[in-house]
Amino acid sequence: MIFASDNWSGPHPAITAALAENGAGMAAAYGSSALDKAVEQRFNEVFEREVAVFFVGTGTAANSLSFAAVNRPGGVVLCHREAHVVEDECGAPEFFTHGARMAPIDGANGLIDPYNLKRELKRFNPDFVHAGQPMAVTVSQPGEAGTIYPTETLDAIAGIAHEHNLSLHMDGARFANALVATNLSPAEMTWKRGVDILSFGATKNGCWCAEAVIFFDPDKARQFPYIRKRGAQLFSKTRFVAAQFMAYFEDGLWLQLAAHSNAMADHLRDALDASTHAKQAWPTRTNEVFAIVEKDMAEKLRAKGAVFYDWNPPHSSHDLLAENETLVRLVASWSTTGEDVERFADAIA
Amino acid sequence: MIFASDNWSGPHPAITAALAENGAGMAAAYGSSALDKAVEQRFNEVFEREVAVFFVGTGTAANSLSFAAVNRPGGVVLCHREAHVVEDECGAPEFFTHGARMAPIDGANGLIDPYNLKRELKRFNPDFVHAGQPMAVTVSQPGEAGTIYPTETLDAIAGIAHEHNLSLHMDGARFANALVATNLSPAEMTWKRGVDILSFGATKNGCWCAEAVIFFDPDKARQFPYIRKRGAQLFSKTRFVAAQFMAYFEDGLWLQLAAHSNAMADHLRDALDASTHAKQAWPTRTNEVFAIVEKDMAEKLRAKGAVFYDWNPPHSSHDLLAENETLVRLVASWSTTGEDVERFADAIA
Amino acid sequence: MIFASDNWSGPHPAITAALAENGAGMAAAYGSSALDKAVEQRFNEVFEREVAVFFVGTGTAANSLSFAAVNRPGGVVLCHREAHVVEDECGAPEFFTHGARMAPIDGANGLIDPYNLKRELKRFNPDFVHAGQPMAVTVSQPGEAGTIYPTETLDAIAGIAHEHNLSLHMDGARFANALVATNLSPAEMTWKRGVDILSFGATKNGCWCAEAVIFFDPDKARQFPYIRKRGAQLFSKTRFVAAQFMAYFEDGLWLQLAAHSNAMADHLRDALDASTHAKQAWPTRTNEVFAIVEKDMAEKLRAKGAVFYDWNPPHSSHDLLAENETLVRLVASWSTTGEDVERFADAIA
Amino acid sequence: MIFASDNWSGPHPAITAALAENGAGMAAAYGSSALDKAVEQRFNEVFEREVAVFFVGTGTAANSLSFAAVNRPGGVVLCHREAHVVEDECGAPEFFTHGARMAPIDGANGLIDPYNLKRELKRFNPDFVHAGQPMAVTVSQPGEAGTIYPTETLDAIAGIAHEHNLSLHMDGARFANALVATNLSPAEMTWKRGVDILSFGATKNGCWCAEAVIFFDPDKARQFPYIRKRGAQLFSKTRFVAAQFMAYFEDGLWLQLAAHSNAMADHLRDALDASTHAKQAWPTRTNEVFAIVEKDMAEKLRAKGAVFYDWNPPHSSHDLLAENETLVRLVASWSTTGEDVERFADAIA
Repeated sequence: MIFASDNWSGPHPAITAALAENGAGMAAAYGSSALDKAVEQRFNEVFEREVAVFFVGTGTAANSLSFAAVNRPGGVVLCHREAHVVEDECGAPEFFTHGARMAPIDGANGLIDPYNLKRELKRFNPDFVHAGQPMAVTVSQPGEAGTIYPTETLDAIAGIAHEHNLSLHMDGARFANALVATNLSPAEMTWKRGVDILSFGATKNGCWCAEAVIFFDPDKARQFPYIRKRGAQLFSKTRFVAAQFMAYFEDGLWLQLAAHSNAMADHLRDALDASTHAKQAWPTRTNEVFAIVEKDMAEKLRAKGAVFYDWNPPHSSHDLLAENETLVRLVASWSTTGEDVERFADAIA
Repeated sequence: MIFASDNWSGPHPAITAALAENGAGMAAAYGSSALDKAVEQRFNEVFEREVAVFFVGTGTAANSLSFAAVNRPGGVVLCHREAHVVEDECGAPEFFTHGARMAPIDGANGLIDPYNLKRELKRFNPDFVHAGQPMAVTVSQPGEAGTIYPTETLDAIAGIAHEHNLSLHMDGARFANALVATNLSPAEMTWKRGVDILSFGATKNGCWCAEAVIFFDPDKARQFPYIRKRGAQLFSKTRFVAAQFMAYFEDGLWLQLAAHSNAMADHLRDALDASTHAKQAWPTRTNEVFAIVEKDMAEKLRAKGAVFYDWNPPHSSHDLLAENETLVRLVASWSTTGEDVERFADAIA
Repeated sequence: MIFASDNWSGPHPAITAALAENGAGMAAAYGSSALDKAVEQRFNEVFEREVAVFFVGTGTAANSLSFAAVNRPGGVVLCHREAHVVEDECGAPEFFTHGARMAPIDGANGLIDPYNLKRELKRFNPDFVHAGQPMAVTVSQPGEAGTIYPTETLDAIAGIAHEHNLSLHMDGARFANALVATNLSPAEMTWKRGVDILSFGATKNGCWCAEAVIFFDPDKARQFPYIRKRGAQLFSKTRFVAAQFMAYFEDGLWLQLAAHSNAMADHLRDALDASTHAKQAWPTRTNEVFAIVEKDMAEKLRAKGAVFYDWNPPHSSHDLLAENETLVRLVASWSTTGEDVERFADAIA
Repeated sequence: MIFASDNWSGPHPAITAALAENGAGMAAAYGSSALDKAVEQRFNEVFEREVAVFFVGTGTAANSLSFAAVNRPGGVVLCHREAHVVEDECGAPEFFTHGARMAPIDGANGLIDPYNLKRELKRFNPDFVHAGQPMAVTVSQPGEAGTIYPTETLDAIAGIAHEHNLSLHMDGARFANALVATNLSPAEMTWKRGVDILSFGATKNGCWCAEAVIFFDPDKARQFPYIRKRGAQLFSKTRFVAAQFMAYFEDGLWLQLAAHSNAMADHLRDALDASTHAKQAWPTRTNEVFAIVEKDMAEKLRAKGAVFYDWNPPHSSHDLLAENETLVRLVASWSTTGEDVERFADAIA
């Protein structure tokens, strides 16, 4: 009954096998092997256009280096107030950009409200150097709150971003889960919506350690090789990342794994809906579930072996909880079993 | 009728005279002249204890280098959501700290609400490296909203800060105006309240360019000489700053100038209270006045020669203004004349 | 005949097996799993004392974050003029330290000459803030030139470093090769010599991606968890690195692999000594060999399938090469075969 | 007999007068006053073309922000090994560029040798990301060694820089002294030689605090307003810098002051040439004189009231001094008197 995080899972066997297969012999280091090139080509196919792909080691690196790539002096990134880049990356986005500010935008359910975005941007004026200059908008798809931007909202945000000459970045740490939940293609979810840069995460969905930064306009990536190397994210034996991605895309493995974790989360959602001691904190459709649970029940669940994290309530919902309640996060992963979920459902009933 | 900013005023004649007097002959550079030492001693007297004083060139430098002095990896500074360090320094605080995050705390009238501060600090946990680590709380006295922290509020904030092992920094860009408005001594306003570091500003109050960082515990300043030099803020002919400060403190000039600008602002406040086309946006007691003015009236005032800036409403008060209203800032300075203020009062009546 | 770099080799089968074995089931992320803890304990045994161990993804990260951990404002790292941290890390050490300067020290064969180190340190004076302040000395063991510091030289450097209150850092990207070549224990090579921090590399010696920063005084590492996370080097599924290290240390695998690559390099050295068209540029004892080769011969070797890099001559040896000669680097790895080396020997004879 | 530094002098009376005259009344802050604009126009005339001018507070700021303006990820600045930016700015250039490396180039008498510059640049290769990428060459005119680049050498350096697509920066902390010594016009010394950015210093030559960054191609300066503000170098009452520059250029004051200090230095040089206890360490023509002095004599001079600094010998001349000798720097300034110099000449005879 471990619902702590999808990064508690190890790799899928196909990933393990790919590492074993691709480790033999000599291969050019630093991204220039045949396998690296083949995987880059694979990304082009997945996204239905020529993209620039850069492997990195962590999602934090993917996000932070993305911002570094489009930063301007006094740069400001507009993001949701509870975005992962603000709350969970220990200042790495600010560090890698030498101090770009993450400007918090409010919005329900972890999603930027385009109206608020527009209003915040009005606070900046190109003639007023003191305020700094916006340089990017970042959205998480799905977000830390497990929710998904509707297509129309993404379009609205992209429109605002581009009207202000800002790059639109998408944090796709759980990108596959969003695809499966919406039935959109990778292209429909990203560049067809106006996304300029994507942090493409595979680690949480069955890999060991496979993240990538995707530029939909390769021209914008010309300085990125230096940005990545300077950021200590250029691995020597890059075929170890490449091999993971190769297996990840093979026969749609990535979407199958995400479909499984989303489905397991559906069962968790059902269990919460059926419980009289807990409820969904807000509606989600991906592999993350947020629950308001009676404190006694939370203790009982943990005593029975359930593992999950307490979660900070959103800034805008400080009154979310009654005195005897706590907010927790439940995450299903590719290796979550139906049995685990059933035991949890029984325990919380 | 120029109420644009107190930094539109030139220096007081006594400052000019001091520069003329102290420019002759040779004097050791980089802060080691007799005059520099005498001014440091003067600061000890002003604050009634031994302090470490470092001259810098701008208020932005004073604030940013203060944070740099107490920063920790993944460091977070808790500040008001509309603090100058967030809204008006083009990311310098983040830049000089290599990416410390300015965490916005809400509170009415530009003042941090201790309750909100406490709640925000609960989001951090020493065992959870992802969130980063708070390292300082900063308050402006008076703040960008022209308001003043009551003594009890400062005490509460200091208590919270020190309980969490955070430094308490005060942005005193208009420090003298706060002293005069409260009738507190420099000591009572700062270290007796628990303030650890003060950005002491004199530029806005009759100097050309005289700012200082004050450490109330000189031991904490041991690395600051390097921090300042690396930050390009160690002037060679520091007697230029020292001479200004010497004159500034002479015969209480600094408090007289601040008393004058506060009094001029009182007249502005009276004029707003008497007007049917404008009103104070929120109550202030220092030399800054914020007014909600009918747009027609604002235009009329400008046509008659009044100079003042439009101002962004606080994030928490987006509904502050009616459709036909605008928010403006009026600043009185040491050189504002009663005549100017009367003309303005007539115009807005 | 691939002698391009030891990072062209894939992982040793035991490493692959360890990854397969340790991937199953759920395990706590971010370094807190039982396996992570077991590996930390293993490091204590390897180094015969309690150390603080932090996994990171690249050698560049290990070096750069080490410096960040001991940096001071205006900090200076004293290093060999051709150190990897200067020549091959794209400014990452400067980037992660926010601008610490790498001060180049000359010395024959890629080794810092203690006499030159001492002389350079005399240029700094605690009362002269302009020059900045030294904060660390870094040595590579073995260095980019493939050479090894004699014990007495290390002792001399450590003495100078500590006399000046500087941390001594060792870049051990090929640490095992140095151990095998000298027959010293890990303890004898490091903390018994006065080394404070070690970049412990395993990637080049049979792992996929396994690097660690070792603090011999765990107290000095208290801020390092934040430094690593902010630097985007905290992997979620850290058991991936832990599993590699576990296998690496098992039954002395790491020393066996290094012994093999050193031995293969011995054969390369013999081949050069026997050739009339090439010679060793300077004497080495580890798995890196530097050769002055006639340009025609270099071309011939490449035509026959040999892969190796041209190398920049040391700054101090601009006259190293005759007109018709080139400097090249040959690296043997754990997977280099005797057959490969023999073919090379025949080709260069 | 104070020859410590030209920054020990106060301001010339004309500078003081200008400050007094221009302080009255209100004027727009942050560089937008009529006086600011007039001074910008003055710079256009001085340099015989339209330039972009940005006032800053220190020479360190001017140099560091210049590099920040043209930096690239992994950027490298090629400079003389004993350049001020390396030896005397406490890492500010690295700090403001977030870690650009200052790559030391050797050359006699403090001047970059174009041959060495060319050779160093060969070490970089656009396909080899590890080495970083050169982004600028910086020369000091005159340099820290008091010497002046001949026109042909500057042309050679500019040619090499531009061939490699690098910006050429000139550190003109004592720019006027170089102009007077060479009889070249400001244009002939800078953009006609291929200089792209100039740190224009006036502080050492009779101002209180007046430095500027000059871009000879204003298009390249579009982001500089943000770079300066973020760097805490945007002064509010900029007319205080503007007023100094206005007086500085009036009736050729700046060249007269530099001519005086150069002439005073000529007398010092004569005194050294005539002495049997001292000699010029290397030939200079500006207001800095470097002398090898017998230690006894140095002590005697100081006992008689002479003030001057000991100086680190160049890295390339460690054998410059005999056991009983020391290297010292003597600087003449606009306020150095013939009487002072004569007393010194007598004392050292």
